[in-house]
Amino acid sequence: MSPKITTELLKQLRQVMKNPKYVQEPVQAYIVPSGDAHQSEYIAPCDCRRAFISGFDGSAGTAIVTEQHAAMWTDGRYFLQAAHQMDNNWTLMKMGLKDTPTQEDWLVSVLPEGSKVGVDPFIIPADQWKRMSKALRSAGHDLVPVKENLFDTIWTDCPQRPCKPLITLDLSYTGVSWRDKIVALRSKMAERKVMWFVVTALDEVAWLFNLRGSDVEYNPVFFAYAIIGMNTIRLFIDGDRMKDPPVREHLQLDSTLEPEFKIQVLPYGSILSELQAIGAGLSPKEKVWLSDKASYALTEAIPKAYRYLTPYTPICIAKAVKNAAETEGMRRAHIKDAVALCELFNWLEKEVPKGTVTEIIAADKAEEFRSQQKDFVELSFATISSTGPNGAIIHYKPVPETNRTLSVNEIYLLDSGAQYKDGTTDVTRTMHFGTPSAYEKECFTYVLKGHIAVSAAIFPNGTKGHLLDSFARSALWDCGLDYLHGTGHGVGSFLNVHEGPCGISYKTFADEPLEAGMIVSDEPGYYEDGSFGIRIENVVLVIPAETKYNFKNRGSLTFEPLTLVPIQTKMIDVNLLTEKECNWVNEYHQKCREVVGAELERQGRHEALRWLLRETEPLARVQ
Amino acid sequence: MSPKITTELLKQLRQVMKNPKYVQEPVQAYIVPSGDAHQSEYIAPCDCRRAFISGFDGSAGTAIVTEQHAAMWTDGRYFLQAAHQMDNNWTLMKMGLKDTPTQEDWLVSVLPEGSKVGVDPFIIPADQWKRMSKALRSAGHDLVPVKENLFDTIWTDCPQRPCKPLITLDLSYTGVSWRDKIVALRSKMAERKVMWFVVTALDEVAWLFNLRGSDVEYNPVFFAYAIIGMNTIRLFIDGDRMKDPPVREHLQLDSTLEPEFKIQVLPYGSILSELQAIGAGLSPKEKVWLSDKASYALTEAIPKAYRYLTPYTPICIAKAVKNAAETEGMRRAHIKDAVALCELFNWLEKEVPKGTVTEIIAADKAEEFRSQQKDFVELSFATISSTGPNGAIIHYKPVPETNRTLSVNEIYLLDSGAQYKDGTTDVTRTMHFGTPSAYEKECFTYVLKGHIAVSAAIFPNGTKGHLLDSFARSALWDCGLDYLHGTGHGVGSFLNVHEGPCGISYKTFADEPLEAGMIVSDEPGYYEDGSFGIRIENVVLVIPAETKYNFKNRGSLTFEPLTLVPIQTKMIDVNLLTEKECNWVNEYHQKCREVVGAELERQGRHEALRWLLRETEPLARVQ
Repeated sequence: MSPKITTELLKQLRQVMKNPKYVQEPVQAYIVPSGDAHQSEYIAPCDCRRAFISGFDGSAGTAIVTEQHAAMWTDGRYFLQAAHQMDNNWTLMKMGLKDTPTQEDWLVSVLPEGSKVGVDPFIIPADQWKRMSKALRSAGHDLVPVKENLFDTIWTDCPQRPCKPLITLDLSYTGVSWRDKIVALRSKMAERKVMWFVVTALDEVAWLFNLRGSDVEYNPVFFAYAIIGMNTIRLFIDGDRMKDPPVREHLQLDSTLEPEFKIQVLPYGSILSELQAIGAGLSPKEKVWLSDKASYALTEAIPKAYRYLTPYTPICIAKAVKNAAETEGMRRAHIKDAVALCELFNWLEKEVPKGTVTEIIAADKAEEFRSQQKDFVELSFATISSTGPNGAIIHYKPVPETNRTLSVNEIYLLDSGAQYKDGTTDVTRTMHFGTPSAYEKECFTYVLKGHIAVSAAIFPNGTKGHLLDSFARSALWDCGLDYLHGTGHGVGSFLNVHEGPCGISYKTFADEPLEAGMIVSDEPGYYEDGSFGIRIENVVLVIPAETKYNFKNRGSLTFEPLTLVPIQTKMIDVNLLTEKECNWVNEYHQKCREVVGAELERQGRHEALRWLLRETEPLARVQ
Repeated sequence: MSPKITTELLKQLRQVMKNPKYVQEPVQAYIVPSGDAHQSEYIAPCDCRRAFISGFDGSAGTAIVTEQHAAMWTDGRYFLQAAHQMDNNWTLMKMGLKDTPTQEDWLVSVLPEGSKVGVDPFIIPADQWKRMSKALRSAGHDLVPVKENLFDTIWTDCPQRPCKPLITLDLSYTGVSWRDKIVALRSKMAERKVMWFVVTALDEVAWLFNLRGSDVEYNPVFFAYAIIGMNTIRLFIDGDRMKDPPVREHLQLDSTLEPEFKIQVLPYGSILSELQAIGAGLSPKEKVWLSDKASYALTEAIPKAYRYLTPYTPICIAKAVKNAAETEGMRRAHIKDAVALCELFNWLEKEVPKGTVTEIIAADKAEEFRSQQKDFVELSFATISSTGPNGAIIHYKPVPETNRTLSVNEIYLLDSGAQYKDGTTDVTRTMHFGTPSAYEKECFTYVLKGHIAVSAAIFPNGTKGHLLDSFARSALWDCGLDYLHGTGHGVGSFLNVHEGPCGISYKTFADEPLEAGMIVSDEPGYYEDGSFGIRIENVVLVIPAETKYNFKNRGSLTFEPLTLVPIQTKMIDVNLLTEKECNWVNEYHQKCREVVGAELERQGRHEALRWLLRETEPLARVQ
């Protein structure tokens, strides 16, 4: 990697920061956050402004450019990458280290008195604006919205905002029609006495209307907003895609409908003016519901007294609880995904010893096998295909510069997943194609014990996922090992592979309680820097559990694994497992045999079937 | 219990609420919180204003009196008690129920436009003032400080503020001199660039000066404040107790000292004017450090720009980590406490079958045995002595109306502790003096498994206690049982039995990480309403653990039980224990035999020693 030369770009940016054509008053600093106007985790190329100005293209980072300085804040995952990708114009601000100033403190230390700090009000979430604005004001500066994004003038070859065709999902996939979703949403609005709900997150728009898109890589979403009133529906979306007959039919755009279900289609760019018009016309007690992570621009369109802000929207919460059709779809998707991985691992077992398989080849092969499955759409995130020391880099993605050849001497970690029309997958398996060392097996077995402890946990209804996080660590902790990431995240149904409002992590306490029908990942790991990485990840469904006393009728929950891919028994030190854990592995493998075996048979994939049968031989524990 | 008749009192209070002699402007509502000017958990009789005005004397509750209404907010523990103790003038507001309004919402619903709501600014913490003031202001009302406490005029027989003699603790108890504590505090102040630190919590004043008192029942503290400057020490304390020669010598009041260690003794009541004088004289960048739970009155004395507020003070954090002298003291105190309980349980075993022992008699007997031990000072909290259904009331305290006789047919739960000059104890044992049912044994064994899971847990340095809470519940959860309280709290060293900043609870996420030297309780339970209660509580010390891989040199921690009282083996269903759990019980009992046995022998308590030996026979697990 060679750094991007940014001298000229920074010069241009500093010019527009003072140019009255673009800013009302000169700004002495300009903040370039990651992210788009929808606070998406994955963003489209046209929204990669921070990467454009700095060269650093990791998933998290905020750039601040002043007249004299250019600084980049990012976290531990990206210190190395950012240092490689940025030139000498930039100062790297290593977040999490004791001596690293916050953005606010740094700004206060470098700005001349009474400065203006500009930021695009569509990119910065309202809660973040509030915090930063307060800190700057108390030091005599002002945070100001710069409405014309300054980049539009200097990023001359900025790609167009994608506007790809839409996919309509019928009831067999979604279980609930968009009309019924609107009815349910309006009833939540009535409960909270709000008149309007503004849908700003892309996956929430997609879920609400039972539509999918491909404007953003990995996430099957499309650029749109919606405003739902008690009697009106406004959808803000661009392009010819709304002329597509199946889409028109799906949304009943040309039918005679009750007025409250008539969708008014408006240009994507008109959301602000429409919302401002609503804001200006509100009568007392008419509240507007927004996520507290919505952009500052949209939040400000509603006068403060009329805002109703919540960390999780009713759509976010409803979307997390999968109905029967979605659950069945997720099951089907995971069976197909398991077929693809059985094929892959069978292929790797033969090819790796030849010394010709690199991390990139393995990742491509995984995609090839997945793409052979019915309703395959795309990958659900960039495949983490890593061998040996690369496995210890938690967010590794192989690139030519780092691409390593798989061998019989190193552990191989594959964290990958796909979008199928019936569901989203995300699975990690850690394999050895030779003979693992006793230490590697020991570590793998502790990780497995943690995986099982979460997967088999029984807990009362209403328990928040973060209360289960330590179960995943207990076996590692007993030996003085740990891993520095959370244990699980919510997974969408043919939607984002990471979604709220639930999860399993020591870090998140704002998670909503787990409910039957929610789907999360269970992915403890262990990483030995410079040597190897281990992670075992299943996607699991929250289901009711049967317990002897049932929590005084409060109800019991547990997890059912949706992922059905063998866990390499060669890596397990059976003597470290309890009888219960050993039984769990054997029952899990029995289920893989039955369910995935039948599908491999049906698809005529006999060699992969033989691999599956070999890999799922029952463990025998020495008594 | 018959309710207190409050008609006349309320009439008087409503008069003073309008009397210009006491209030600048009439107030339409007056808030009476629990608590004193130090935000203490246990308060002195003179501070029980809420109990005086309403009759309700539970530990938690807030009264609000308006011209028309009188309402009391309290939580589920006290619904019954409050309903019994209050007359018809009062409306009970059941906190935690869906339809119960918050204090702010209720005030807004009943107050005439533009009302003033009064509250004693010394009683209300600053953070609470801020919240309530904001809510009232947005509805057009004002929260106003009523500086002359209105009660002073109507509570004519209000007891005097206690002013009892002080106890000085020498280095053999405290390990660190008060001078060295001041030096350490000043270095923390220098680190944060603050010039002044205001000590408002009573246990923090006591700890800092190595003094103890008895102004409040159960907590060995005394009414005082302190202001520590970089070169000055001011102690605000009343009474003749500062004339006591040992106190004068301990504080070196009459010695020639370096000026920065010279303690200036001032009247308790002068804290506000002294702090205001400091506040008025601050130069730019001179900050004053206060707890964010300090009273509104004291917080307001410092102009906002000069305040440095933190949830935990440096004293709170330093106090939590016990040094070698304190740890040794705690060990000694727990051995003496175990001797007293061995005597008690031996006595109960003989007396209970006679049917003459009530809950109150048992509690008194426990106190009697404790008071025979060296350096006994008082109990550390009101003894929970409960049998049968009373055991299911988590904060039960036997009173004549509820006093139940112990029998061979019911489970007996004793949660008790004492203050010794060398340490504070808090222990719960659940016993059966006849033959427990299979169900009772099953529940007891799950609770024991949870107790062991926490006590034997190994975890990396820097782990917060709340991450261990689920370990205590896992065995109960597996069978559909749970308990609705946290698992542990910090314990002071001859100080408050409940102290921050650490604990083990699903509720607290603001806890500080556990460190070697911290002391917490480990007390899971199970409660069957109307039938029985089970709790097993030890006080445990956080100690370094030895692990195979030691968390990449981050270090490992675990717990060592300080409490050494047998856990009744009769209540254990051995077949539900794993081998590891069974060994834990046997090793624990072996240690009780060795350590407490030796002390019983030394004290010539041979019958209790025989009881101990009987009760600590090793468990034999069927293989």
